[in-house]
Amino acid sequence: MRIGILGGTGDIGEGMALRLSPHHEVIIGSREEQRACEASDRMVRTLQAQGSRSACTGADNQEAVDEADIVVLAIPFRHVAITLQGLSGFEDKIVISPVNPIGRSDHFYFAPPPEGSAAMQIQRLLPESARICTAFNNIAANRWKTLGEPLDYSVAVCGDDPQAKRQVMDLVASMPNLRPFDAGPLRASSMVESITPVLLNIARLNGMKDVGIQFR
Amino acid sequence: MRIGILGGTGDIGEGMALRLSPHHEVIIGSREEQRACEASDRMVRTLQAQGSRSACTGADNQEAVDEADIVVLAIPFRHVAITLQGLSGFEDKIVISPVNPIGRSDHFYFAPPPEGSAAMQIQRLLPESARICTAFNNIAANRWKTLGEPLDYSVAVCGDDPQAKRQVMDLVASMPNLRPFDAGPLRASSMVESITPVLLNIARLNGMKDVGIQFR
Repeated sequence: MRIGILGGTGDIGEGMALRLSPHHEVIIGSREEQRACEASDRMVRTLQAQGSRSACTGADNQEAVDEADIVVLAIPFRHVAITLQGLSGFEDKIVISPVNPIGRSDHFYFAPPPEGSAAMQIQRLLPESARICTAFNNIAANRWKTLGEPLDYSVAVCGDDPQAKRQVMDLVASMPNLRPFDAGPLRASSMVESITPVLLNIARLNGMKDVGIQFR
Repeated sequence: MRIGILGGTGDIGEGMALRLSPHHEVIIGSREEQRACEASDRMVRTLQAQGSRSACTGADNQEAVDEADIVVLAIPFRHVAITLQGLSGFEDKIVISPVNPIGRSDHFYFAPPPEGSAAMQIQRLLPESARICTAFNNIAANRWKTLGEPLDYSVAVCGDDPQAKRQVMDLVASMPNLRPFDAGPLRASSMVESITPVLLNIARLNGMKDVGIQFR
């Protein structure tokens, strides 16, 4: 399966590419193809130094969409709409949203758009045939990048297309220690996205770093 | 510390009383004092049969409020307003809300009142000096009652009064295997309450029972 990671040179995107590329063909997408290629080279070297093979290439975001079977939107919420408006070719693609709309006052809080969640906004912005799933919403960027430590977490997966959801759950399960859970239709994504500000508050208030969750 | 459990004859209330009464003085409250006393007798016998001591008594809800240092609202969301409107004496009390407003269509969803969360509604209904904290929102009723199995979960605690929050976190920590986490001000409760429908969806869709969480 070819995984295209839009925003693949950002914090979460780079970490996801590092973790996914030993198991899957990964295309790192960026607004600037050269940055994507540099990030890809860096990753291949990092993984080779650890004895892992890596099938990772760089591309601009549009090429990453065009070449991928599954597109991951590793983009901060505030950049999602503008990024998607500049791209095409999402018809029939599986699209993963790990995006969380979060605000901050004296604490972090869930700050959804009028559609109710980042996932529902993404659904409105993409063609009707795009098969959107939420996944990886509750894993901190730093954890993705700390390759020496397993990602010992649960991953809630929401979506309306059963076959796409199955493929996304299989993708989650292909990563050591990650456990996928069907968490309902795409409309249920708001509740999954809003777990992330809880984790940020808990990290800040209890002297912890990069808190994640397990369902059990 | 004397813990008054309103709705102590319901599913969650009875389970909480069972778990708390070996460690604390528990007053089970009910609309009908006789039912509370019967539940209390049943619990004392259950715990004695397992070799545990139990300091548990039954009372009507008002007496449970009056006698307790900490009042737990083990009441379904739809009964909260009517129950609180019939009671008084909450001034300066620590009040724990494990209440979750949940709706159900093809999936479970967070269905908050206009105040944004059950906790914020409870704050509006009680005197200003009542010190409200959320806790225990994400633990299933059945788990409380299954005494043979430890409650190996994380508990997010929200509240605006630091001293009250500290006492509630200490109460959580007094129960074997439960781990308290400061999860921010009372306004952050909406995000903690909305984790519960995620857990219900995950249980239903993945063939699991009584799913809880760990932050890690």
